[in-house]
Amino acid sequence: MKISTLIVTVIASLSILSLISMAMAVDLNPEDPLPSWNEGSTKAAILNFVANTTNQSHPDYVEPEERIATFDNDGTLWCEYPDYVQSLFMFDRVRDMAPDHPEWNDTEPFRSIISGERRASANFSINESLQIYVATSTNMTSEEYMDLAKEWLNTSRHPRFDLPYTGCVYKPMLELLSYLQSQGFKVYIVTGGDEDFVRTFSDEVYGIPAEQVIGSAFRLQFVENNSSVALVKLPQILVMDDGQEKAKEIVQNIGKRPILAYGNSNGDIPMLQFTTSDGRHGLGLLNHHDDPVREYAYDKGSAIGRLDSGLVLAGEWGWQIVSMKEDWKEIF
Amino acid sequence: MKISTLIVTVIASLSILSLISMAMAVDLNPEDPLPSWNEGSTKAAILNFVANTTNQSHPDYVEPEERIATFDNDGTLWCEYPDYVQSLFMFDRVRDMAPDHPEWNDTEPFRSIISGERRASANFSINESLQIYVATSTNMTSEEYMDLAKEWLNTSRHPRFDLPYTGCVYKPMLELLSYLQSQGFKVYIVTGGDEDFVRTFSDEVYGIPAEQVIGSAFRLQFVENNSSVALVKLPQILVMDDGQEKAKEIVQNIGKRPILAYGNSNGDIPMLQFTTSDGRHGLGLLNHHDDPVREYAYDKGSAIGRLDSGLVLAGEWGWQIVSMKEDWKEIF
Repeated sequence: MKISTLIVTVIASLSILSLISMAMAVDLNPEDPLPSWNEGSTKAAILNFVANTTNQSHPDYVEPEERIATFDNDGTLWCEYPDYVQSLFMFDRVRDMAPDHPEWNDTEPFRSIISGERRASANFSINESLQIYVATSTNMTSEEYMDLAKEWLNTSRHPRFDLPYTGCVYKPMLELLSYLQSQGFKVYIVTGGDEDFVRTFSDEVYGIPAEQVIGSAFRLQFVENNSSVALVKLPQILVMDDGQEKAKEIVQNIGKRPILAYGNSNGDIPMLQFTTSDGRHGLGLLNHHDDPVREYAYDKGSAIGRLDSGLVLAGEWGWQIVSMKEDWKEIF
Repeated sequence: MKISTLIVTVIASLSILSLISMAMAVDLNPEDPLPSWNEGSTKAAILNFVANTTNQSHPDYVEPEERIATFDNDGTLWCEYPDYVQSLFMFDRVRDMAPDHPEWNDTEPFRSIISGERRASANFSINESLQIYVATSTNMTSEEYMDLAKEWLNTSRHPRFDLPYTGCVYKPMLELLSYLQSQGFKVYIVTGGDEDFVRTFSDEVYGIPAEQVIGSAFRLQFVENNSSVALVKLPQILVMDDGQEKAKEIVQNIGKRPILAYGNSNGDIPMLQFTTSDGRHGLGLLNHHDDPVREYAYDKGSAIGRLDSGLVLAGEWGWQIVSMKEDWKEIF
């Protein structure tokens, strides 16, 4: 090694040394990694779980490559009330596309979206919702779809909180995602929403890269035109990533069983069961929307984020019910 | 910070400092990252591509999160001749399972595997191969399948090289994988083989974690038994990950277009086309098995790793044909 190279190396190493010292000081003298969570049994359960699974001398220790955590998106990481964000995007797409589809003026479910008669996803049957999903989200590439979604997200605001939807993400959840990542967890989103829709903002908003988003998707067609290749979303649903499908997609996409799973509705139950199955020490968590003042209160009878079975099964399976009212100091 | 903590911090930092100095010394005075590659246009093309895409002041610079590289497995990363490793595993599975399947003694394709009349996958039709795949690889969980595959890989050896199959991986390719990873690339395997089969050894052998392996797969069934949950591989093929399916799976699993794709047979063409499509600066590479002395020579007429179209399209699309004879100093 040349002397000049040696000097550069030593100087660079010394700067890195001071950074490392600071990092280690934090680690040896930890501050609260979850400042927006109130003290209590839920927060303690999370901190204990992470402490044990990352402590090599603890019986529950888990090697870093097996520290997989999976999170639902709607109602778990961001607000899903009074309607799913993606549904609102799709309704706006129908109105934008209407001039090119005169036949929609007398075809349901499009007619009543255009006329404004039905304004919420709860007003549509499952089949109608799928029709709207297909009509607004296919016959284009993922890139084209994501451009539309990005533009819409940049210009739309939540009706009550007057924030962009990407501002309606839960602060305690952002802290948890970042805490888990700092402790060697690989964090995935497993959403019932379109995976390209969530990939539009997952990295920027949650710090979760597109390839760690698993969600609903369409069949694709390989289209070659001269020396240009594109994959086009066909109007055929390939995966509706809800319920048991979430567990299946986790196996197919990750090939490992999560040790932590976090949801907020009945559709997340199989993912939590898979994670906390007998003989494992997995942690299951469910957000309970019980704060009508700062957010919303809904669970058993709601068309959105219904949690009746989840509340019953949580006891049997040992899942943590996170009270957004009691456990969270702040919401957004 | 307590004094004892400070001492621990300083000692730990100093050890890390010396490691960093070593690492930086290499970085400031770079050694050849591909020592098993002979100098020439192929090696230069790889080194230039990586230098440009990682150089912020170069027009071809690519942000780290977009540095996706996809590699085929059989014939690209490890030896696929005289037969696919997974096929040999399946033939052995048929013989192991035969006592529980007396009906196989007079049912093809099983009969001729048990009798030893047909010994290579080239002797079976595509439908027969799928039948063998389904019969040997389903009605169990991924974990159970991977245990079987692991045990088999630990006890089987390549007939010519007398090495375990996981020893028949190409040294120049291991160097390339590790070089790309050191330059911020996220490397995926996109294989026509069963994804659980490749996940069995990908981390240990290639340094590629299970969740970065995309391959063929079966439909799964969610099975709940008391408080135990398992996902069982059903005898229904969900994905045969070859040809255009490789490009589709990349979009669905990663959600980003690769900037480097590397294969060795016609089945890899769509993945390379997708990567090097018009207007992009992607790099496409194909191993050409042209070294009968150190490995094998096969391409146009072969039932395994057929490359006739690939050799033709490489010129049109600007792909690098890697001559294993000329470009590689060592094979294994």
